[in-house]
Amino acid sequence: MVGGGRGAFIGAVHRIAARMDGLAELVAGALSSDAERAHASAEDLFVPRSYGTFEEMAKMEARLPKAERIDFVVIVTPNHQHFAPAKTFLEAGFHVILDKPVTFDLAQAIELRKIVKASKKLFVLTHNYSGNAMVKQARELVRSGALGDVRKIVVEYSQGWLASKVEETGQKQAAWRTDPARSGASGCLGDIGTHAQQLVYYVTGLRIAELCAELTTFVPGRALEDDGNILLRFEGGAKGILHASQIAVGEENNLNLRVYGTKASVEWHQERPFELIVKFADKPRETWKPGNSYVGEAAKNATRIPSGHPEGYLEAFGNIYREAYRGIAAVESGQPIPKDLDCPTIDDGVRGMQFIASAIESAKGGSSWVKVPNI
Amino acid sequence: MVGGGRGAFIGAVHRIAARMDGLAELVAGALSSDAERAHASAEDLFVPRSYGTFEEMAKMEARLPKAERIDFVVIVTPNHQHFAPAKTFLEAGFHVILDKPVTFDLAQAIELRKIVKASKKLFVLTHNYSGNAMVKQARELVRSGALGDVRKIVVEYSQGWLASKVEETGQKQAAWRTDPARSGASGCLGDIGTHAQQLVYYVTGLRIAELCAELTTFVPGRALEDDGNILLRFEGGAKGILHASQIAVGEENNLNLRVYGTKASVEWHQERPFELIVKFADKPRETWKPGNSYVGEAAKNATRIPSGHPEGYLEAFGNIYREAYRGIAAVESGQPIPKDLDCPTIDDGVRGMQFIASAIESAKGGSSWVKVPNI
Amino acid sequence: MVGGGRGAFIGAVHRIAARMDGLAELVAGALSSDAERAHASAEDLFVPRSYGTFEEMAKMEARLPKAERIDFVVIVTPNHQHFAPAKTFLEAGFHVILDKPVTFDLAQAIELRKIVKASKKLFVLTHNYSGNAMVKQARELVRSGALGDVRKIVVEYSQGWLASKVEETGQKQAAWRTDPARSGASGCLGDIGTHAQQLVYYVTGLRIAELCAELTTFVPGRALEDDGNILLRFEGGAKGILHASQIAVGEENNLNLRVYGTKASVEWHQERPFELIVKFADKPRETWKPGNSYVGEAAKNATRIPSGHPEGYLEAFGNIYREAYRGIAAVESGQPIPKDLDCPTIDDGVRGMQFIASAIESAKGGSSWVKVPNI
Amino acid sequence: MVGGGRGAFIGAVHRIAARMDGLAELVAGALSSDAERAHASAEDLFVPRSYGTFEEMAKMEARLPKAERIDFVVIVTPNHQHFAPAKTFLEAGFHVILDKPVTFDLAQAIELRKIVKASKKLFVLTHNYSGNAMVKQARELVRSGALGDVRKIVVEYSQGWLASKVEETGQKQAAWRTDPARSGASGCLGDIGTHAQQLVYYVTGLRIAELCAELTTFVPGRALEDDGNILLRFEGGAKGILHASQIAVGEENNLNLRVYGTKASVEWHQERPFELIVKFADKPRETWKPGNSYVGEAAKNATRIPSGHPEGYLEAFGNIYREAYRGIAAVESGQPIPKDLDCPTIDDGVRGMQFIASAIESAKGGSSWVKVPNI
Repeated sequence: MVGGGRGAFIGAVHRIAARMDGLAELVAGALSSDAERAHASAEDLFVPRSYGTFEEMAKMEARLPKAERIDFVVIVTPNHQHFAPAKTFLEAGFHVILDKPVTFDLAQAIELRKIVKASKKLFVLTHNYSGNAMVKQARELVRSGALGDVRKIVVEYSQGWLASKVEETGQKQAAWRTDPARSGASGCLGDIGTHAQQLVYYVTGLRIAELCAELTTFVPGRALEDDGNILLRFEGGAKGILHASQIAVGEENNLNLRVYGTKASVEWHQERPFELIVKFADKPRETWKPGNSYVGEAAKNATRIPSGHPEGYLEAFGNIYREAYRGIAAVESGQPIPKDLDCPTIDDGVRGMQFIASAIESAKGGSSWVKVPNI
Repeated sequence: MVGGGRGAFIGAVHRIAARMDGLAELVAGALSSDAERAHASAEDLFVPRSYGTFEEMAKMEARLPKAERIDFVVIVTPNHQHFAPAKTFLEAGFHVILDKPVTFDLAQAIELRKIVKASKKLFVLTHNYSGNAMVKQARELVRSGALGDVRKIVVEYSQGWLASKVEETGQKQAAWRTDPARSGASGCLGDIGTHAQQLVYYVTGLRIAELCAELTTFVPGRALEDDGNILLRFEGGAKGILHASQIAVGEENNLNLRVYGTKASVEWHQERPFELIVKFADKPRETWKPGNSYVGEAAKNATRIPSGHPEGYLEAFGNIYREAYRGIAAVESGQPIPKDLDCPTIDDGVRGMQFIASAIESAKGGSSWVKVPNI
Repeated sequence: MVGGGRGAFIGAVHRIAARMDGLAELVAGALSSDAERAHASAEDLFVPRSYGTFEEMAKMEARLPKAERIDFVVIVTPNHQHFAPAKTFLEAGFHVILDKPVTFDLAQAIELRKIVKASKKLFVLTHNYSGNAMVKQARELVRSGALGDVRKIVVEYSQGWLASKVEETGQKQAAWRTDPARSGASGCLGDIGTHAQQLVYYVTGLRIAELCAELTTFVPGRALEDDGNILLRFEGGAKGILHASQIAVGEENNLNLRVYGTKASVEWHQERPFELIVKFADKPRETWKPGNSYVGEAAKNATRIPSGHPEGYLEAFGNIYREAYRGIAAVESGQPIPKDLDCPTIDDGVRGMQFIASAIESAKGGSSWVKVPNI
Repeated sequence: MVGGGRGAFIGAVHRIAARMDGLAELVAGALSSDAERAHASAEDLFVPRSYGTFEEMAKMEARLPKAERIDFVVIVTPNHQHFAPAKTFLEAGFHVILDKPVTFDLAQAIELRKIVKASKKLFVLTHNYSGNAMVKQARELVRSGALGDVRKIVVEYSQGWLASKVEETGQKQAAWRTDPARSGASGCLGDIGTHAQQLVYYVTGLRIAELCAELTTFVPGRALEDDGNILLRFEGGAKGILHASQIAVGEENNLNLRVYGTKASVEWHQERPFELIVKFADKPRETWKPGNSYVGEAAKNATRIPSGHPEGYLEAFGNIYREAYRGIAAVESGQPIPKDLDCPTIDDGVRGMQFIASAIESAKGGSSWVKVPNI
């Protein structure tokens, strides 16, 4: 693991998710950009091999015999420290699991895509929400044609924790997320908007062709936007709205998605992730829940316990890991990455960075419509 | 009553609402633009005085002794038949209660405003959703400063009943609403979008200063838009989204509003109208319900029965009427219209038509931003 | 109307419900047992013919020409004043609509049944909750066999408004309901428990064969029980629980019913009356809502407005009235009471009083099991 | 681990929960009562030391040097195989974590209590639902007096998976649970009713003094009850209802609890475990959610991720384990079991078996009231 030491948030989530199914152990880490803090964190976490820097870790691990060294690395640093370790580990011959957003900016993402393709290693971007069983069910319903043609998509990701200037209170999570030097050109969109955009693509397969973005910084003195309202035009004619906020007081982690088709519609709320609402014109509304006989294969595989036993955020995250391990095992046994591997890839990463870049371009042009290139 | 005969929908709603509290009786009507249908409808409904046209009705009723003639008229015709009867009855000395949207176009609305102001009569526009007790509570919370400054507003009005071309199946409601000659320049926005816009204004008092509207006609061959996604900039700096749809399959009458302030937020759903969700940064989320000791005056007055006994759409509609009667009684007793009269007025009507006009202007300009004049 | 004057609650509800559909007017009343208060109340309510006593009203109305006199009477007095006016009006040749519970005690109910049968008049008991569209849908699903055989029934009616001794604060509603001289031998069960019991019978048609009742008076100094938990054995083998409370702090009017069959189950909550949840072993849970094409005839007839426009307590109450008018019209035109008339009858009343009597018998015997005679 | 091999359900849950926080590894097991199956299962799960029987495991592990041998054992066998391994491992000097219900019958439970007390080892019974953060919050509210005196308790545990005779379809979970030789004298109560009973005690601290139980076997040919409705009298005067079912078609894992006090009430639903509803007489209803600044210490400690990131069944289970490890660490370092250790104990186990024994005694006596001894 690179990053994720003392004071971090998402590192602990990755650790729980990674070992949830007993398929991995944390054996090495460069857990902080500060070497001392890195070693202290390693001690806290009983990590056998602690390194002061990710470069050292990559070099030393690569020298170990295959059976002893790490199988893959998990990178959970702030955004500006994504590209370098990802490149280093891929080039050192390790599979990489990287927290989103993929890189600091679009150029890095495109560059990283080249490196990933050249590496023949598995690269997984932890857009964890697509690991939810009922998201997978939504995807299956859309893809199977049960919804007819998609007409309208409404996706939202609202939080309230940045409604006041918490970055000045010593809150480490807020500090780097609101700092352009560490977070990149976007605040709210990079942190949570990309999850919403990835979720839409995962479920519908529809690419955003044009967008019109109104980005606002509500908290005085903050450098990056903390709210965004975006109109979307998808390839093929569907229309949509994506709105994200970190100043929506009282919202916790309200990511939700609705997809309206010509025949039926689906609705999913991250805060009740085990429900998928399916609506029809002339039949009662249905609530699909995981663990039941009627759900599809993808949802079935993403469920560990019987219906009515709620799985949540960590289990969805764990599903990304479990699927990543299937990919790693395939590659390690000399096979290609499975075609049906159900993990976010470097392509999700590039799409996400392009989405941010286009939204910022729109916002800078007075919230005008811009075309989103399919790069 | 003008309009509301056989085959109509909203006429019956008005009749129930108007007499809910035993304060009015239906004694005269020109219930259809077709005289024969008008008389037949009057017979169905036991209406003592039936007229073939609204002109005749206004003339004849005005000739009756004060104690015998109607006190006010309710106009529930399609949009293109709003202006003429409203003008006629106001000028004949009657109070007017008119279904929304106020007129066929903005010019008529401005003209009607002049007539209303000159008439000294009460004019009420039945934006019924503002009659809900919990909407009134939301308004009180916003106006009292409990939310702090308003930053973001999300309002939605989604229906699915026009997802296919029902106007060709003989559905009278669909037929006129999708016909530019009867509905006006807008379909979905005029029918339901204006309710959403009025609700926002009612609760927050914030005027839309600029907007950017993406209007879409999804059903092939339909002349008017059946879906609209609109970005909003309010006077004073708040931002917002208004989206409305009549092709959102499986949605019934999903009008909902969220207002996010610097200190707290409110959320209201028309389909569960007796709940107001109030959210805070650092306190548990609250659910306010009517009929309880803790609600404010306005909500108290808009409630007929104890808490836990759900009031719905008709009761909210009835509240508009009950308040209108208070206004009529004041005027009839020689007093001015009460300052605190809680009814939508001709100003709501003009604002609504301006909203539609600006949205169409934006849409025609490729969904560009347009300023919304404060006329 | 008999009763329902100043300070009353349910009288106003009856008035709204009775005239909701424009089918009745309030023309005469003995609105209080105190003559002065009766006349004052009549003036408040613009009731043309006010009487000082119900006896006078019955006598005088009967003397009026058929076209001028009342068609039926509504009795909304406290329980101890149900029997006498009901008897009087039935014997004077009027149809009677009576608020529940039917009488002060079981003996009176049995006596009243004789009088009703002899009178050939329509007698309706306003168990209003069975007027809800989704309750009727539940009934249709149960009766059609869609649930298979009924195994288990859970019904609850919880309120909190009597959690403290409000009867000593001048609250008129609380005062008579907690007074054995006016309410009868039961408090909570008579007031709300009978609604729950009637709802079960209405939906399932199953009679309670045996019961075991734990009745408790929680508020010190109160004479009647304010809480009851009852185990039920139905004819045919189904088992059940009925619990009712008026000391459940924070509950408003939480009446809810679940019926579990061998094939499917239904769940209904009075506080969200427009939803019926239908559950299956191997299909997604469904939410049925009124006004949709898929609901059955009974629900369709009990709905006034399109789907998504919530109807509530008053509309359900109005449905009882509308159906009563259908019965009255039939009888008045010389026909028998329609076989499919969907109104609670004197038989519901007798069953309700028997239920109370058996519950009290059980409670007095240390909450032992007692057989409920089918009288 | 003893039990939990191929075909088991709860074993996998324990494994995920036990290692969720990176504090334990599975190093040894007797994973099935069939030695061959045990070894095969160990291979599946990468368990280093596999034993053919639990006796062998206890003996051999005890012989290993302290640093190499297991620290504690987890027993997840069917009920009839709880007592022997628990006794064996305790007496061999190991801490024991045991799945509920504690033993096959009450006599065994009392005997085991003696063994536990004598052993000085930590004994934890995995009543996992008390590991939920919002259950802990409910407990804190009750214990702090925020609810006033508790008057009424309603607890339910409804499932539908045994509504037909699945035990004849090869479903291993159903087979042993419906078999008196493996499950004990009770079916539904032992499997899930004890969870409900333990939850009530955990939250309120109130002991059941008397009960009246109606136990029913609905599925023809089944030997044990599959449904139970029980009236409760608590020490101190509170009354209650506990109902549990495994034939409630369409219910998944519907455990829910309501506690009504003189001042406020709480409501919790296992299927949305991250919400605690708190109700008041004269304040808006509140929804408490984990991860927020306003929750108490116990809830805070039982939460791993920020508010709005749902934790579920596995995380609650993991909380029991994490707390158990704190106890084990204390004992191993020579200290007493921490007084504030928040884990279900052998006393919960004895209370649970007494509850079952009393319920069966009541049912056998025609569902009469029986006193529940405080043993």
